[in-house]
Amino acid sequence: MFLHTSRLQFEAKPDRPDAHYARKLQELIGGAFGEMTVTMQYLFQGWNCRMEGKYKDLIMDVATEEIGHVEMLATMVARLLENAPSEATDEVAAKDPVVAAVLGGMDPQQAIVSGGGPTLSDSNGVPWNGRYIIASGNLMADFRANVAAEAQGRLQTARLYNMTDDQGVRDMLRFNLARDTAHQNMWLAAIEELQEDGLEGPIAPSALFDEENAEHAGTIWHNSDGALGAEGGWASGTAPDGVHEFSYVMDPEPLGGHASAPKPDPLLYATSPANLGLIEKAIRKLT
Amino acid sequence: MFLHTSRLQFEAKPDRPDAHYARKLQELIGGAFGEMTVTMQYLFQGWNCRMEGKYKDLIMDVATEEIGHVEMLATMVARLLENAPSEATDEVAAKDPVVAAVLGGMDPQQAIVSGGGPTLSDSNGVPWNGRYIIASGNLMADFRANVAAEAQGRLQTARLYNMTDDQGVRDMLRFNLARDTAHQNMWLAAIEELQEDGLEGPIAPSALFDEENAEHAGTIWHNSDGALGAEGGWASGTAPDGVHEFSYVMDPEPLGGHASAPKPDPLLYATSPANLGLIEKAIRKLT
Amino acid sequence: MFLHTSRLQFEAKPDRPDAHYARKLQELIGGAFGEMTVTMQYLFQGWNCRMEGKYKDLIMDVATEEIGHVEMLATMVARLLENAPSEATDEVAAKDPVVAAVLGGMDPQQAIVSGGGPTLSDSNGVPWNGRYIIASGNLMADFRANVAAEAQGRLQTARLYNMTDDQGVRDMLRFNLARDTAHQNMWLAAIEELQEDGLEGPIAPSALFDEENAEHAGTIWHNSDGALGAEGGWASGTAPDGVHEFSYVMDPEPLGGHASAPKPDPLLYATSPANLGLIEKAIRKLT
Amino acid sequence: MFLHTSRLQFEAKPDRPDAHYARKLQELIGGAFGEMTVTMQYLFQGWNCRMEGKYKDLIMDVATEEIGHVEMLATMVARLLENAPSEATDEVAAKDPVVAAVLGGMDPQQAIVSGGGPTLSDSNGVPWNGRYIIASGNLMADFRANVAAEAQGRLQTARLYNMTDDQGVRDMLRFNLARDTAHQNMWLAAIEELQEDGLEGPIAPSALFDEENAEHAGTIWHNSDGALGAEGGWASGTAPDGVHEFSYVMDPEPLGGHASAPKPDPLLYATSPANLGLIEKAIRKLT
Amino acid sequence: MFLHTSRLQFEAKPDRPDAHYARKLQELIGGAFGEMTVTMQYLFQGWNCRMEGKYKDLIMDVATEEIGHVEMLATMVARLLENAPSEATDEVAAKDPVVAAVLGGMDPQQAIVSGGGPTLSDSNGVPWNGRYIIASGNLMADFRANVAAEAQGRLQTARLYNMTDDQGVRDMLRFNLARDTAHQNMWLAAIEELQEDGLEGPIAPSALFDEENAEHAGTIWHNSDGALGAEGGWASGTAPDGVHEFSYVMDPEPLGGHASAPKPDPLLYATSPANLGLIEKAIRKLT
Amino acid sequence: MFLHTSRLQFEAKPDRPDAHYARKLQELIGGAFGEMTVTMQYLFQGWNCRMEGKYKDLIMDVATEEIGHVEMLATMVARLLENAPSEATDEVAAKDPVVAAVLGGMDPQQAIVSGGGPTLSDSNGVPWNGRYIIASGNLMADFRANVAAEAQGRLQTARLYNMTDDQGVRDMLRFNLARDTAHQNMWLAAIEELQEDGLEGPIAPSALFDEENAEHAGTIWHNSDGALGAEGGWASGTAPDGVHEFSYVMDPEPLGGHASAPKPDPLLYATSPANLGLIEKAIRKLT
Repeated sequence: MFLHTSRLQFEAKPDRPDAHYARKLQELIGGAFGEMTVTMQYLFQGWNCRMEGKYKDLIMDVATEEIGHVEMLATMVARLLENAPSEATDEVAAKDPVVAAVLGGMDPQQAIVSGGGPTLSDSNGVPWNGRYIIASGNLMADFRANVAAEAQGRLQTARLYNMTDDQGVRDMLRFNLARDTAHQNMWLAAIEELQEDGLEGPIAPSALFDEENAEHAGTIWHNSDGALGAEGGWASGTAPDGVHEFSYVMDPEPLGGHASAPKPDPLLYATSPANLGLIEKAIRKLT
Repeated sequence: MFLHTSRLQFEAKPDRPDAHYARKLQELIGGAFGEMTVTMQYLFQGWNCRMEGKYKDLIMDVATEEIGHVEMLATMVARLLENAPSEATDEVAAKDPVVAAVLGGMDPQQAIVSGGGPTLSDSNGVPWNGRYIIASGNLMADFRANVAAEAQGRLQTARLYNMTDDQGVRDMLRFNLARDTAHQNMWLAAIEELQEDGLEGPIAPSALFDEENAEHAGTIWHNSDGALGAEGGWASGTAPDGVHEFSYVMDPEPLGGHASAPKPDPLLYATSPANLGLIEKAIRKLT
Repeated sequence: MFLHTSRLQFEAKPDRPDAHYARKLQELIGGAFGEMTVTMQYLFQGWNCRMEGKYKDLIMDVATEEIGHVEMLATMVARLLENAPSEATDEVAAKDPVVAAVLGGMDPQQAIVSGGGPTLSDSNGVPWNGRYIIASGNLMADFRANVAAEAQGRLQTARLYNMTDDQGVRDMLRFNLARDTAHQNMWLAAIEELQEDGLEGPIAPSALFDEENAEHAGTIWHNSDGALGAEGGWASGTAPDGVHEFSYVMDPEPLGGHASAPKPDPLLYATSPANLGLIEKAIRKLT
Repeated sequence: MFLHTSRLQFEAKPDRPDAHYARKLQELIGGAFGEMTVTMQYLFQGWNCRMEGKYKDLIMDVATEEIGHVEMLATMVARLLENAPSEATDEVAAKDPVVAAVLGGMDPQQAIVSGGGPTLSDSNGVPWNGRYIIASGNLMADFRANVAAEAQGRLQTARLYNMTDDQGVRDMLRFNLARDTAHQNMWLAAIEELQEDGLEGPIAPSALFDEENAEHAGTIWHNSDGALGAEGGWASGTAPDGVHEFSYVMDPEPLGGHASAPKPDPLLYATSPANLGLIEKAIRKLT
Repeated sequence: MFLHTSRLQFEAKPDRPDAHYARKLQELIGGAFGEMTVTMQYLFQGWNCRMEGKYKDLIMDVATEEIGHVEMLATMVARLLENAPSEATDEVAAKDPVVAAVLGGMDPQQAIVSGGGPTLSDSNGVPWNGRYIIASGNLMADFRANVAAEAQGRLQTARLYNMTDDQGVRDMLRFNLARDTAHQNMWLAAIEELQEDGLEGPIAPSALFDEENAEHAGTIWHNSDGALGAEGGWASGTAPDGVHEFSYVMDPEPLGGHASAPKPDPLLYATSPANLGLIEKAIRKLT
Repeated sequence: MFLHTSRLQFEAKPDRPDAHYARKLQELIGGAFGEMTVTMQYLFQGWNCRMEGKYKDLIMDVATEEIGHVEMLATMVARLLENAPSEATDEVAAKDPVVAAVLGGMDPQQAIVSGGGPTLSDSNGVPWNGRYIIASGNLMADFRANVAAEAQGRLQTARLYNMTDDQGVRDMLRFNLARDTAHQNMWLAAIEELQEDGLEGPIAPSALFDEENAEHAGTIWHNSDGALGAEGGWASGTAPDGVHEFSYVMDPEPLGGHASAPKPDPLLYATSPANLGLIEKAIRKLT
């Protein structure tokens, strides 16, 4: 169960409205790597976690914090939209190129649908959806996804940081950047600890190593013509899991047979010489 | 530019058809962590890569391989669908519970739309989409996403491995498991090499460390009531980046002010005491 | 079965083209609360209605009218797009900030895809989809959704009304505003009549009142810290259904036990101490 | 900012696993009228609310409660999935029609993707998305949508209640039914109070009544041939807003002119006699 | 403007309910090539048509007919769902494999959401959306899409025809098959007439033939290794437009330079040697 | 299996960056009729093809070429985005209307998400998805869809050609236009050849002509009031398949009975007089 305080985790006060930037910030709310994604990803990982203890407690700590990040950004967007143009504006635009740019770059739904507030969408207005998240039950696989989400999140926040010189906005983003640093480190530490605790190995899942095709578990296939792929550390030597040996297959050959689909079912009407009689009959009936 | 041989990278021959399993395999074709995702993610990362050399060449090697994985799975699905029921089947089902189960669990679009072949959808029939991929230009952020994608991919392949005892299907999946092992190791090796080459640090992006709010770059907030989150390695000590110090905030307090939206624009008709006069006037006109 | 006349239900002639506004109007065609939504919502409600008579006949009357509203808006959009820039325009834009604004704010698909006509999308270009509609068979639940749809529809129309001073556009919107008023009133009247006819009570569905947990059927839980929620009419007294008594739970306590997921299936590879032996074995095989 | 306790708002313990039902319950998590929708709808309404006070405080109270409903359902789904088949099962199915039914009706992603836990999708596996919610800033329009959401939610919960006889599941659903009753009443009370407080009239938004086309603000158009639409209370008399008079237009005539699109831009290549010369020229060049 | 009669264009009475088949029929309602698609595609083509006259009148005739096809199918689905199981059914299933199959293969939303009626989705429950349609303004391009839609539609109807032996359902599908035949012929005739009238040539659009790169306007590139592509009529001789000459490029060579992305903007943080100094500086600040 | 060379199929070098145009070009990458669609459509058609030989070999030739078209466009977009504004820009915009237009019209995700590269989305930022493609197994139906896709593709390319005067961009588009001409001709030739080979007739599928309702296989229904639909070649005479006779039904009458839904299941709570007793009972319990 959850409780809420109306105070924000961190302040979210822009120095001045900026409707154009309000659109861009939507990426951090409803984008594939925005705060909504980490909120729901961590909540579902916590609820799906199969071990009581420090990992689950950590996940729920961070998940609950992230709902508050959506709140900060939603508040910021509403404040950035204050005084955005809501009236017939061609004549105004004719006199003021900044107004023109604002008009051109605004998210129309922030005005028409939300009445000056955020939507649950990204910076192109595409709605957030539940396929952005993963909660697999395997903590190694999930924590790798979490590091990736925080890295993309910090990257996008950094890009947005440069796109404004509003000190109030930048103050909030400095907090967001710091949290994304903390969370990247945190998930990296948790990945190390999973291995130290003997719960998972570096390769997810820790299973079916015996069954998998050993011959192909360390090779890099050279299917493109760039010559330098063979020069990386992945082309030879021991792999990061400490077990497999890398090798680079310079002239890869297909190992399988011809790609073909099976004989068609006549009632599904695939084109096939096997159906020739049927078609002839069909067309004859037609004529 | 691309070239194609009609031979498969690895054999994809089931021992016998299995229409139910053909639906499940769709997850590896068009699911969020299926082969289509890694194909397009790597292709777009390669095309968006800003350094010529070993990293870009590697990405294009692997991207090109992955198109062939989609091909193997598409071929396998068509073969598993051979002889799937395409006629009125209630009476048959009445006599045979396996037929009944197959009918219930089939993907109807594999028959009605594709005529016995795969669709570009996941195991629930939801179409694959372009938001599943990321190609940010920052290789550290992207390679972290690639490790995560290969880990989830191998996890899902492992689960599917247990859901069949068809030796032909298992042979192909043994190859897939091995490739997912190789690729996890490979991206992990590439992450190490990015750091050794001095191109990226462990935290993505390697930027704005000065600007970010240092006070909040190492703390874990205790926003849930599980007591054990404080006992992990992330609660104290030096973080994986070798620089930040972790600390655990046991009783976190909000740092920001009250979450509030600004005064509304009267022409957007938000409910507000500020609009009381307007509404009175509107209703008076109405009456 | 349907018939069509090529005359519009109401005139849709703008005084002059306005490509920027043509994008905004898309919200009324293909937005979640646009005319396409009410058209398909009412059609499916009519077809799914389980009582012959006045309710079904009304639904079909209005549903059929709404197809004509999509037609009016589609016609208006095509006319607003007349003479929109279709040639290389940077140089023109350099001289004219209004052209610049128009270019920036145009929906590129209205030109590239539709050749100067509307798309079946909202003002951000997101396609309309079938999950926007509801036709549950329960008329009380559905008519409540209809009031909501007409209210949001009129609100969005009102906002758009202020964003243009084109008298031709405004004439059409004045008609639309009036229809949305009529339809809000109409669905409100139908809700009253459903209750007078004894077909439904105010709470949907009129069922399972005996079975539901009576203790929790009138309480408002104070899960946030705003103090004033307790001062509304919903915090005490008799509820609108004339039966339940409201009460306000000032310090709510969770009633359930610990949220936990069950013991994992080893073949799904969730991280779990129960799997420690398996992982050790897996990693040993690996090494 | 939010805080979390690991205790559930209400107990969520099934008597026994039921993988088939676990799929159906997804509708209450990630369906268009599930708990995720009311959670995010109320959160965004609260953050977008333009009046401090009882309405905003109420919205945040209920929004925060709803996150806990997602938690209860997510926990229930994981428990219902315990022991669901994760191995090759055709042979088992051949012997047991219940297993066959379970296999056919399971959500494959609950196993393959989530490892025995819920996804953020509906009962057909379609992901939840941000267009399901509305937060317009106008409380009358929004509260009407809230009543509708709670009505559809209670209706779907009632249908699901009949589809199980598991007493543990039914206990939880009895709580959910009661909360949906409480919340329907609550939003109905809030709608009354908005009007008593003079903040909104019954028709949303309380604006542009003077501007709208009065002639068409009370008529019901008879566009279908069912004869009984004219017999409802909406066909005559005073409308629920107490102002408008209803009338029924028995033989409606279109009021607008011919629906036509304007002269095409030659560079957009619409088919048009105006382009005859151009095409002739184009084809001549071709030949 | 539209009018409606409550009589169906053709009868839609199944001999008996069949909940399993009701799910499959959804493909003809809300699938990418279902009746909803042709309805909206033709309506938008008609509204976007730039020539008054026979083509536009034909499009509107057929568009209006198609709304009635959605109506027939929606009615049929509701009737097929009569008496579908709505109660706890595991025990029933245990005794009856047909019930088991039905349960497994039902669309749960047809019961839970629509209360025994159709949804606006396909046979996997994915909602219909507005990107399935095209209305480009160019009648040659659009009529080609229309032929394709009717062909896929008839193909899917034919497959569904074999999946039932209910005579009432088959009667309706016989009508649908016939209409799809008529409409394929009709659009093919319209394509011929567009050319006879000199309005369009066979290649859409009839433009830019002078500007296009003539050297590459007739070649087929041999990018795969199947040897027989060179034996078709497309490999040599005069093309169907009567102008171009086909040729087959047996050993195609790339014509462009190296695929590379430009020098990155430092503020977007792409990984690049150009940023080495920046990263060093960033990491130094970090340490 | 696939191989790749890093050389482009054709050169993709713009004369100068143009961020605004980079957004528009997304339509050719990830739009419903862009290169991604033809790539995946042809790949899946090839893999689903049921006849070895010239048709399958051709499909794979062209499919493989199309992956290279995505590559060309992705490269072009990255180059057009060079030097696009990535810093706070309101002040710059204030001085330069072209900058203002660029800012307004840019795709924000090309900067924030992709760091100056393309996304897998259309020109409105909506992600490409797998429902855009069709691979039915019936080559007549599929090739008709292929002609349509190439026609819409060439049409959109032609429109984009006029929207730039950059000679480098136009050079690439001249190649694209030519390929779209070649491919339209090629699929038209393949359609002819399918018929000459006796594999398919003109109407897809070549089946069920005996079973379909012959009376309705040649009629055009006059459901709209445009008088001229009767004057086309589709209104009388022999149809293109050489068999059916067209006729035009001037005053069409519905052939079916009343559209009605069956008696509701009480446990699904549809509103119905049949449920009156139940509701009375429910409400009595409530009171």
